[in-house]
Amino acid sequence: MPDILHKVDIKSSPNETYRALTTLEGLAGWWTTTTGGNPSAGGTIAFRFGPQGGFDMKVLELEPARRVLWQVVDGPEEWIGTKVSFDLRPEGDFTVVLFKHQGWKEPVEFMHHCSTKWATYLLSMKSMLETGKGRPHPDDLHISARGD
Amino acid sequence: MPDILHKVDIKSSPNETYRALTTLEGLAGWWTTTTGGNPSAGGTIAFRFGPQGGFDMKVLELEPARRVLWQVVDGPEEWIGTKVSFDLRPEGDFTVVLFKHQGWKEPVEFMHHCSTKWATYLLSMKSMLETGKGRPHPDDLHISARGD
Repeated sequence: MPDILHKVDIKSSPNETYRALTTLEGLAGWWTTTTGGNPSAGGTIAFRFGPQGGFDMKVLELEPARRVLWQVVDGPEEWIGTKVSFDLRPEGDFTVVLFKHQGWKEPVEFMHHCSTKWATYLLSMKSMLETGKGRPHPDDLHISARGD
Repeated sequence: MPDILHKVDIKSSPNETYRALTTLEGLAGWWTTTTGGNPSAGGTIAFRFGPQGGFDMKVLELEPARRVLWQVVDGPEEWIGTKVSFDLRPEGDFTVVLFKHQGWKEPVEFMHHCSTKWATYLLSMKSMLETGKGRPHPDDLHISARGD
């Protein structure tokens, strides 16, 4: 099964990076300003993107400063059941973030779009942690003709 | 075998987008300013990135305004033999660019980095075609602790 893989190194500590992935305020600062729900282990986080809909993610694993694993429980059909993980490790003044979105059934065109879009959001997280300002939806970088 | 997949929609014609992929001037405007060699079918293009080295790509297929396929003949070990393709199609005022970098043996950490880095270069191509200004190396967006 094809996966989406990314890596960004962020000039921040693993603890701060982990907070960006595990608090509603952190997530709203780089992915979408309309983030709600419960980001604790076993909880479900609701990410919303206006008329484009959104994703509900169940928090399957949390290892402070090291790892976050979500499973998509609602959203676009291609996403349901897929898993999204962030593995963190320190490297000098940086935190290395290894990202995987796994479990896609087919390498459909939408997966190509999501791969590029994830890159823009990971760069938004990097920017938020390094400069204080991310580009969460609705201020996200648009990469498609339909405006997302 | 794992692949890197991306999609960007660019407000330009398929012909202009194809020129950005098949002329030394076009390629130098979004990937690396130090682009040389022969971008015709059967030729080899040399992309250089200063002390970080570079890639030699053999041009395997060219279909005007539709498709470009390269094979890596020299560069980092993980890249050698892999194939890079760009499939273009018009959609309203846009050209849809479907990108694939296929043939990776293993989903190594370097592949994660290259996936994110390809996204930044494809966004650089989009910017070049839409605004006249890309971000080719050495003006590229750095995403790693080592400065690439």
